[in-house]
Amino acid sequence: MASESGKLWGGRFVGAVDPIMEKFNSSIAYDRHLWEVDVQGSKAYSRGLEKAGLLTKAEMDQILHGLDKVAEEWAQGTFKLNPNDEDIHTANERRLKELIGETAGKLHTGRSRNDQVVTDLRLWMRQNCSKLSALLRELIRTMVDRAEAERDVLFPGYTHLQRAQPIRWSHWILSHAVALTRDSERLLEVQKRVNVLPLGSGAIAGNPLGVDRELLREELNFGAITLNSMDATSERDFVAEFLFWASLCMTHLSRMAEDLILYGTKEFSFVQLSDAYSTGSSLMPQKKNPDSLELIRSKAGRVFGRCAGLLMTLKGLPSTYNKDLQEDKEAVFEVSDTMSAVLQVATGVISTLQIHRDNMARGLSPDMLATDLAYYLVRKGMPFRQAHEASGKAVFMAETKGVPLNQLSLKELQTISPLFSGDVSHVWDYGHSVEQYAALGGTASSSVDWQIGQVRALLRAQQA
Amino acid sequence: MASESGKLWGGRFVGAVDPIMEKFNSSIAYDRHLWEVDVQGSKAYSRGLEKAGLLTKAEMDQILHGLDKVAEEWAQGTFKLNPNDEDIHTANERRLKELIGETAGKLHTGRSRNDQVVTDLRLWMRQNCSKLSALLRELIRTMVDRAEAERDVLFPGYTHLQRAQPIRWSHWILSHAVALTRDSERLLEVQKRVNVLPLGSGAIAGNPLGVDRELLREELNFGAITLNSMDATSERDFVAEFLFWASLCMTHLSRMAEDLILYGTKEFSFVQLSDAYSTGSSLMPQKKNPDSLELIRSKAGRVFGRCAGLLMTLKGLPSTYNKDLQEDKEAVFEVSDTMSAVLQVATGVISTLQIHRDNMARGLSPDMLATDLAYYLVRKGMPFRQAHEASGKAVFMAETKGVPLNQLSLKELQTISPLFSGDVSHVWDYGHSVEQYAALGGTASSSVDWQIGQVRALLRAQQA
Amino acid sequence: MASESGKLWGGRFVGAVDPIMEKFNSSIAYDRHLWEVDVQGSKAYSRGLEKAGLLTKAEMDQILHGLDKVAEEWAQGTFKLNPNDEDIHTANERRLKELIGETAGKLHTGRSRNDQVVTDLRLWMRQNCSKLSALLRELIRTMVDRAEAERDVLFPGYTHLQRAQPIRWSHWILSHAVALTRDSERLLEVQKRVNVLPLGSGAIAGNPLGVDRELLREELNFGAITLNSMDATSERDFVAEFLFWASLCMTHLSRMAEDLILYGTKEFSFVQLSDAYSTGSSLMPQKKNPDSLELIRSKAGRVFGRCAGLLMTLKGLPSTYNKDLQEDKEAVFEVSDTMSAVLQVATGVISTLQIHRDNMARGLSPDMLATDLAYYLVRKGMPFRQAHEASGKAVFMAETKGVPLNQLSLKELQTISPLFSGDVSHVWDYGHSVEQYAALGGTASSSVDWQIGQVRALLRAQQA
Amino acid sequence: MASESGKLWGGRFVGAVDPIMEKFNSSIAYDRHLWEVDVQGSKAYSRGLEKAGLLTKAEMDQILHGLDKVAEEWAQGTFKLNPNDEDIHTANERRLKELIGETAGKLHTGRSRNDQVVTDLRLWMRQNCSKLSALLRELIRTMVDRAEAERDVLFPGYTHLQRAQPIRWSHWILSHAVALTRDSERLLEVQKRVNVLPLGSGAIAGNPLGVDRELLREELNFGAITLNSMDATSERDFVAEFLFWASLCMTHLSRMAEDLILYGTKEFSFVQLSDAYSTGSSLMPQKKNPDSLELIRSKAGRVFGRCAGLLMTLKGLPSTYNKDLQEDKEAVFEVSDTMSAVLQVATGVISTLQIHRDNMARGLSPDMLATDLAYYLVRKGMPFRQAHEASGKAVFMAETKGVPLNQLSLKELQTISPLFSGDVSHVWDYGHSVEQYAALGGTASSSVDWQIGQVRALLRAQQA
Repeated sequence: MASESGKLWGGRFVGAVDPIMEKFNSSIAYDRHLWEVDVQGSKAYSRGLEKAGLLTKAEMDQILHGLDKVAEEWAQGTFKLNPNDEDIHTANERRLKELIGETAGKLHTGRSRNDQVVTDLRLWMRQNCSKLSALLRELIRTMVDRAEAERDVLFPGYTHLQRAQPIRWSHWILSHAVALTRDSERLLEVQKRVNVLPLGSGAIAGNPLGVDRELLREELNFGAITLNSMDATSERDFVAEFLFWASLCMTHLSRMAEDLILYGTKEFSFVQLSDAYSTGSSLMPQKKNPDSLELIRSKAGRVFGRCAGLLMTLKGLPSTYNKDLQEDKEAVFEVSDTMSAVLQVATGVISTLQIHRDNMARGLSPDMLATDLAYYLVRKGMPFRQAHEASGKAVFMAETKGVPLNQLSLKELQTISPLFSGDVSHVWDYGHSVEQYAALGGTASSSVDWQIGQVRALLRAQQA
Repeated sequence: MASESGKLWGGRFVGAVDPIMEKFNSSIAYDRHLWEVDVQGSKAYSRGLEKAGLLTKAEMDQILHGLDKVAEEWAQGTFKLNPNDEDIHTANERRLKELIGETAGKLHTGRSRNDQVVTDLRLWMRQNCSKLSALLRELIRTMVDRAEAERDVLFPGYTHLQRAQPIRWSHWILSHAVALTRDSERLLEVQKRVNVLPLGSGAIAGNPLGVDRELLREELNFGAITLNSMDATSERDFVAEFLFWASLCMTHLSRMAEDLILYGTKEFSFVQLSDAYSTGSSLMPQKKNPDSLELIRSKAGRVFGRCAGLLMTLKGLPSTYNKDLQEDKEAVFEVSDTMSAVLQVATGVISTLQIHRDNMARGLSPDMLATDLAYYLVRKGMPFRQAHEASGKAVFMAETKGVPLNQLSLKELQTISPLFSGDVSHVWDYGHSVEQYAALGGTASSSVDWQIGQVRALLRAQQA
Repeated sequence: MASESGKLWGGRFVGAVDPIMEKFNSSIAYDRHLWEVDVQGSKAYSRGLEKAGLLTKAEMDQILHGLDKVAEEWAQGTFKLNPNDEDIHTANERRLKELIGETAGKLHTGRSRNDQVVTDLRLWMRQNCSKLSALLRELIRTMVDRAEAERDVLFPGYTHLQRAQPIRWSHWILSHAVALTRDSERLLEVQKRVNVLPLGSGAIAGNPLGVDRELLREELNFGAITLNSMDATSERDFVAEFLFWASLCMTHLSRMAEDLILYGTKEFSFVQLSDAYSTGSSLMPQKKNPDSLELIRSKAGRVFGRCAGLLMTLKGLPSTYNKDLQEDKEAVFEVSDTMSAVLQVATGVISTLQIHRDNMARGLSPDMLATDLAYYLVRKGMPFRQAHEASGKAVFMAETKGVPLNQLSLKELQTISPLFSGDVSHVWDYGHSVEQYAALGGTASSSVDWQIGQVRALLRAQQA
Repeated sequence: MASESGKLWGGRFVGAVDPIMEKFNSSIAYDRHLWEVDVQGSKAYSRGLEKAGLLTKAEMDQILHGLDKVAEEWAQGTFKLNPNDEDIHTANERRLKELIGETAGKLHTGRSRNDQVVTDLRLWMRQNCSKLSALLRELIRTMVDRAEAERDVLFPGYTHLQRAQPIRWSHWILSHAVALTRDSERLLEVQKRVNVLPLGSGAIAGNPLGVDRELLREELNFGAITLNSMDATSERDFVAEFLFWASLCMTHLSRMAEDLILYGTKEFSFVQLSDAYSTGSSLMPQKKNPDSLELIRSKAGRVFGRCAGLLMTLKGLPSTYNKDLQEDKEAVFEVSDTMSAVLQVATGVISTLQIHRDNMARGLSPDMLATDLAYYLVRKGMPFRQAHEASGKAVFMAETKGVPLNQLSLKELQTISPLFSGDVSHVWDYGHSVEQYAALGGTASSSVDWQIGQVRALLRAQQA
């Protein structure tokens, strides 16, 4: 067919087979993780073949039995790979044939590796997403429990990393828990799109042998079947979505880790990691480093990298199956493992973290009540913009005099505005301050309780 | 407060104000797009203030009237920006004060730029996502209409860009339409999370003045209110989700564009872009380039870049509002504009594309029926693996003899398997071939009709 | 040619021209920035045409004169764009023709927009990279000057954000300055690859009219000419490299900004931004936010996004020119502008930043000398691992007793090791501590001086 | 120190040690690849310690001998890891101590894991970059050899994937080879920055024990030493640069792969992959898929993902060492392995690829000479713009008449321009066409020879 001989143009020798290419092409090193779902898919498919009259009952039973045997070997660690088993599908069918003979050759009837592999991956991810879902809810639950138990602790709230206003420690915990509830919600949506059956799509054109895809769907308990065979075998939206879900979730965990790393510095001293989540220094004997939190923070980069990498690969493709899609699995496996570890470590960190209430209390300073001082004037009828300015003048006066804001005398305050009177002293009570923020979502105890209730209700709903 | 004088350490002179910093900090150049939603949000907020007793009815009316005036000026292009208007919120309130005097200073009571800006952005995106939703559905509808009209056209289906099996042209169109229905579904989910009201969260701690957030929600027609004020003012999940939605949608459109660019090459010659979507060459008079498709393809990179950029920015932050978040708006505006143009151009391309039926027919060759030949043997009882091998032998025999696969004589075929008989001639009919793929999702006409029905039903459901 | 009529399949009406496509396709909105280099390139090319005998001397002079006129109009803001001017090249040649008549039609002889546009972009970037180079060196110089002037200030060095060892403030400044010298070096390498002439490559096959590319190179002062016309017109390595250069440089600036944001918190209180680089809060009168540093931090994301976006676009292409490459320019323009602003703002921040020497001194604590305590024992002959352990015991003893590490009595220390003697008191002198780190690159004053010398030598070399 | 007991807030039980955290924290699974360079670095460091008087000659010899033993165990696969060996540095030193006793405890004197690990990584990368450099040059050499041997083959050149002009097949090969020479040049620059010694930087402050870093540099044959200890232990520019180098190089290889995939389609049929680099289909017996090329294409995404991931991680850090940096190694190892495989597979593909000269010749059509037709008129004195238009008219006339462009009669051509005369027939010779493009970088044989010479000279220079 070639118009040229096989003459080599320099380069290392290449015979009929290039061992580097063989290894490059092979996926068994990682897709062996799919052994269980591959068997599961094949069992369902053999039932479909029987219904379609392509297998006799006896043949089907032989195949089912053989597949169970294959699974057993994997489960017991006795499955032996051949050098020619380039992927898990080849390996399992090769072994099936060794076990049951030629009937094994009927299993792949009307099926292609294209629909087989994506069915396997969806089965694996469905299972794994459920596990991650549970781990994520466990983390949120731990946070909410802690928020409820420590609702009386106040500490400084920051914006731009500058002390802003007094808030409840629970309000901070809940701010991160609430972010994670969105991840939990999104994961359910991803799972919905994972849970769609492509089997019966063949390589591109569909299945020509009367296999009933609705029956396959029921056998494998999928929520729906894919609509178009070309799309079904080559779309990896559910993978991209999963990787992006993980990236966004990691962003939340990274931001929480960043907060805790800061709060755990000598300078802030609000929290202290338990020893199980810290590490010492090989050089500096006095140090205890927040390695767990730093690793969480770093994994956000890695996970996003996988998302970016896959998207770049997908973007450059024409439609239908191209071998480039083989990249999907390692990304999924690595990110799943990472998420599982990160969620559990984060739960461990939160559940064992110690807080320094005294330092938190000391972190509050009267200047953080400048906004409340402005509101004091607003309540006396002054337009907010003027009140903001008046409060700013008080801040400046206190700075100039070198005293805390709450040490300005009433007389001094009255030089700024005649609306100040004796009741201004109430402004300086931090507990009183936070209780003002009673609108839903604020830091008042009533709102914190409401938040706890809302998040718990969400968790219940999502678990169902 | 500073322990050092303002001494400069080299560098250009910097006075009280650095003009480069001013420009660096200012967002009015792009956030002016928010003028309408900013007025809308402020009107709702003034109603909230009135209900909370912080504005009299008369003050509220004055503010509402003033804001309408401001909006009118923007709408008519007569709004004049001041050099000090660093953002749209400042600009609008400044103008309001000019129009109605000191009462304007009450509008910002209990509100912060932190909750104001994110409310504005959500309002803007809600509106814009609806527009993009409609444009996306319009594109899908165009594709489905075309798929229905040209259901009788067959052409080669490719995997790995190698000719694989005969398929219907409509099946190809639907493969892309089906992918886009997932984008349409996902956009609805994004919209759901966009449609949550943060107003009333203040800067960090919430609202202390009894503003009823449920009332604000109703005024602005949001689906829900945010749960935690710290999270509400600093989370940009809905932005990241939107950018990722766009990235994935663009990946689909890029893959479709890639197909069409290939199909429009001289070598494939299946399709031809209308002149409105092609461009000539400044050097080569004979050329017509598929610029529209190439631009669609390229925008996938740009859109993803915005997603990656925002995520990197978010990832590096501690919690609550940090100025870094100002980056969100330009990303949203640019990606929205890009998506709007791309969806419309893609619709134009699809609706005016010409197809070359003859070339499509000529693209089909008997070797593409090798799988069907194997199925022929399967139907006669041969296990698929053997049938696949037998069909492979036939392919090889035809190649060796230098004849098309369908030109092998029955006798020749029977040297491969005695199961071949006279009815093998039916295999060589392309129309017969595609009709076999009748399982749901396949390329048979019944399945194509089913797909059309499914996609139309989805569109109806999503529109509702 | 088409086998189908122009029948529309749904969708909005599309005539001979789709205005949305026109706008989508047009690049004049941004490539007008290239007006000057486009004229420059055309002038050189007309000289090349004259040498090749394709223009008479008179024609060349006419063209040169006309191009000067075009440039003058741009410079004076009197150039008027036509609606049909889809890009700057079309616009300039159209205007040239209006000015000098048909001779203008000879300018594009043997040239293609493919080699023209990439020549223009290289010319523009060459100029711009020089500007950025100078701004970057100015920033480094400012940092080094400051490091030299404040060499006597000590403060805590952190790893894992935990207090580690006492260091010089200058050592911290230099750690960032040294990172930036690598960016400065890399930018020179990028410039070297920018500075290569593609003109004379035509659209793909080269130039067939005897134009001397070496002459063009000299005219335009490029360092070399491109080697292959197909590569020359379609490679954008120099753009990708520039975008990555900017991404890595921004990573450095973001890390420095992060440090300064932390050091500027109430809790650290080591530094204070000048007012020119801070902003107040619309809600909290007491706040001063480090907006300049946060914006620098955020731009790192945006710049990387542009790099990622372009790379994704490039990755998906076959070779030679494809319209997708049009995306290069906006990325370059935006990133150049961003870098210019960021480098100047960073210089302003560093040159006006105030430091709180007292707080810096207070930040040092005896436990940060635990490593030095171990070295004390090492110097007395104890293996380091044992010394590290002994020092760790001392830290633990001090913690247990609730006293600073340097308050342990000699007797107490001797319970840990008999090697402790009276001279251990020297360990507790912070000034003495830092001076020990005299190996090149350490925090001793001799090493800091050496660093300053090294960086200044680099700057001089790079400027040359 | 903690103000709270270790009370758990929900979550799974966590004792003193969390096994998931242990595994999360441990790097031995991958950093064991560094065993050799870790020993190498330690040997040099022990020499430094001896010169500084911190080890006696005998102690040094004992350590050197012990380290050789450790290396031997690794080399022979007899090294046994302990469960407590969290990283390769711990493992090696633990083993050294077992082998030589307490003296082993002196090896880490003045050293930190921070400077140790980055020294190891630089040593490893230096070695590996050299290997990749050689593989890359081997690929380029193979391409150049092939370009030289097949210089007489013409085929269509494409822009926008539309047939543009006839070019030499060698010109296409060289277009990709030239791109790769830039990668080769860039890798040398990366290597230069990899080849800088950080050892002697300690954890952050430097080395306080008189270790001579210049001596260490010489021992380990580095090109220079790092300038600042804080920067040295925490900058990973050389890693980011390496990952970006790989990303850009992969972009080039992906574009080449894309071209070859297209050229290998039935429709183009210009090239055919050797069997060693193709794979069959599990469903379609007639298929041979270009898996090698598709995998190369896909790896571009993966490699970029690693680059993006690391950059995101780096971007979010404050200065100095943070545990997040542990992410660097897996990225480097994976990308190095990928590059090594890809470069070798690409060399194999190129060296065994068969070309179909007849099909290439058939791919040329007279309309691809329309530009040459315009140049014919230019040579007769017509301004190019008019000539382009005239040639366009000829193209249109030929299309209208349904004949190839070269079948228009002289008379017909003269209706377009009187400048056409009998010598126009020379235009239609493809060999004559390409020879016109003789400007440097063009597709004429003289220029192709020049390119070959230039690339070979580059390779020689880079090898030196």
